[in-house]
Amino acid sequence: MTQHLPWTLARRAERMNPSVIREILKVTEQPGIISLAGGLPSPDTFPIEAMREATNRVLRDHPREALQYAASEGFAPLREWVAIEMAEQGLPVDPAQVLITTGSQQGLDLVGKVLIDPGSTVAVESPTYLGALQAFNPCEPDYVAVACDDDGPLVEGLAAARGARFLYALPNFQNPSGRCIGATRRDQLMEAARAMGLPVVEDNPYGELWFDGAPPAPLASRWAEGTVYLGSFSKVLAPGLRLGYVIAPKPLFPKLLQAKQAADLHTPGFNQRVVHEVIRGGFLHQHVPTIRARYKAQRDAMAASLQAHLPASCHWNTPQGGMFFWLTLPDGVDATALLPKAVALGMAYVPGAAFFADDARANTLRLSFVTVSPEQIDRGIRLLAQALETHAP
Amino acid sequence: MTQHLPWTLARRAERMNPSVIREILKVTEQPGIISLAGGLPSPDTFPIEAMREATNRVLRDHPREALQYAASEGFAPLREWVAIEMAEQGLPVDPAQVLITTGSQQGLDLVGKVLIDPGSTVAVESPTYLGALQAFNPCEPDYVAVACDDDGPLVEGLAAARGARFLYALPNFQNPSGRCIGATRRDQLMEAARAMGLPVVEDNPYGELWFDGAPPAPLASRWAEGTVYLGSFSKVLAPGLRLGYVIAPKPLFPKLLQAKQAADLHTPGFNQRVVHEVIRGGFLHQHVPTIRARYKAQRDAMAASLQAHLPASCHWNTPQGGMFFWLTLPDGVDATALLPKAVALGMAYVPGAAFFADDARANTLRLSFVTVSPEQIDRGIRLLAQALETHAP
Repeated sequence: MTQHLPWTLARRAERMNPSVIREILKVTEQPGIISLAGGLPSPDTFPIEAMREATNRVLRDHPREALQYAASEGFAPLREWVAIEMAEQGLPVDPAQVLITTGSQQGLDLVGKVLIDPGSTVAVESPTYLGALQAFNPCEPDYVAVACDDDGPLVEGLAAARGARFLYALPNFQNPSGRCIGATRRDQLMEAARAMGLPVVEDNPYGELWFDGAPPAPLASRWAEGTVYLGSFSKVLAPGLRLGYVIAPKPLFPKLLQAKQAADLHTPGFNQRVVHEVIRGGFLHQHVPTIRARYKAQRDAMAASLQAHLPASCHWNTPQGGMFFWLTLPDGVDATALLPKAVALGMAYVPGAAFFADDARANTLRLSFVTVSPEQIDRGIRLLAQALETHAP
Repeated sequence: MTQHLPWTLARRAERMNPSVIREILKVTEQPGIISLAGGLPSPDTFPIEAMREATNRVLRDHPREALQYAASEGFAPLREWVAIEMAEQGLPVDPAQVLITTGSQQGLDLVGKVLIDPGSTVAVESPTYLGALQAFNPCEPDYVAVACDDDGPLVEGLAAARGARFLYALPNFQNPSGRCIGATRRDQLMEAARAMGLPVVEDNPYGELWFDGAPPAPLASRWAEGTVYLGSFSKVLAPGLRLGYVIAPKPLFPKLLQAKQAADLHTPGFNQRVVHEVIRGGFLHQHVPTIRARYKAQRDAMAASLQAHLPASCHWNTPQGGMFFWLTLPDGVDATALLPKAVALGMAYVPGAAFFADDARANTLRLSFVTVSPEQIDRGIRLLAQALETHAP
């Protein structure tokens, strides 16, 4: 317990720390720097006109309801929309299992509160989403990293997760690795998890952002009662609305709901109604393909630049969706140590070390391709190659 | 740890429970029931036209910024607005001390996470705001209730709070008691708290809703480095926007910010910009007086009805602001047992027992006067008197 007289901090506060990425972003958001470090979707994809029309309709037709306190579960028609959408993706759910959250980050906070005791174990992928570690940390878990290859967690790696409260997995175009778990691996993993009694928390912010074909059905479709599923409108509409959802097995739902009520009473009803108004007529069926096409072109540009400029000693997989390349530098090159040189040359990325719960691989880094023009991507990768060249390992 | 195979719940989840009030509201929200049980502001006060204009301006002038991820601290101009507003109320603060939250309920959640260890003590008023207990419960505190009179916590009552992590107090027109702590009592309490090294968490959702004169300056103005202050836009604009703020002493701010970031990354930027657009030209100086006038007339109506219909064996104080009367029934009358009879006659209220952290006074109840017409108030109080009359204590 730290003392800031007269305040005594809770022990869990020791596990709260500034986001490494946000700190890096502050350093790299200088004018003139080509930043491939961001994790933001492209604002060119935000459906501003649809938002304007929807807000006007909501404030014309249901202003009092939209501005009043509302149910902690969420706006019923939006919960129904989510249930229908999930069924189309292969996961039939009852709207009563859908909890609307203030972004899917809040879903992680609620899951942590309900499932993690101090000193209990949470299994994560290697690497894993940094924001999830931040959300879980105040609950003071011990982490165990499940060994992964380019297709996701290894089935034999699950042995390390025995006794964990859950496995946290991001199967579609993972942040940071960009990888997507294939159908066969999904079958194997969920069969093994079920056999071990290892629950799964499935996080899916990027699944809709596929380039060539939709990813396989959710992990949850393979073991519904053993999986909590998190979804988000941040990447298909806009993150500034902070709208996500949790789909929970029925025995878990009441506790997640009570945690939600205690956390912020409910997600802004105004935002829920506006988003429902935007999407209820099938808007996303027209809109999301435009995001896919845009991001695919950006992905292609970065793939070409990596191929053109980086030495053969670097490795990467070309992501089939999402927003990120994951780059492995030659053994012995520390991406954190390299960053200041890259920034001095005029480009920035996120070192991969922050994305590991343990046993960080220092020679990895994350590159975002969605907010920067192909020309800037090419120049940025060129500068990265130059930084690497002049860097003594 | 409860088992819902394959899930193991965290111990803290045992302290999460359905809101007693929300459960009561479900029962009493039947057609034909005059509900004085609600805690909602009157939707007639929501500035719908101003909201429509502001959303259109934000989506015209800053759509990409409003819909993108944003700073966890909050929208800088809104933080500055809060700082200026607080200075006018007698609490000079730096905008860097202002953290924008998803409703002030989230402020309570963050305060709990940063300051409460399992088994540590939190001191509360008697009665106290139920939502705060719900927010703090997952952090597993022990509560100690500070003895109160009609002017708030008794200075000599603070002895019971020695060693507590903080005293949680709602000094202005408290929910549920309606009481407002006077200037002299504020001086005495804060002097004693400072002498004891007892920090204070000051919650102020209702302070602007005064009827005859503004309440005294905040508790925080008497001991800034020992007080966390929570404010809200829910009662002066609209609760469906979920917009509140925390003002923290500088040594505490970073931990609250990190907890905020982990909880939901940031409060919806769209909502922050829209609210700032509504209020930045001084809108509240015209708007809030209309809410005051409306609520004062409603307060007068309920005061007259209580005076006219209730027996002399009942006691209440006429609130000088806010939304609630707090009624003490004759000794031995249990307001929880009386409720079904009142509902059968056609009116509803909230039994007071839920608002006590310990040692509940069963013969108390809360009446809201803001969402029901004077005619309905009169009929509701008449029915309450009738229920009391036929009730065998």
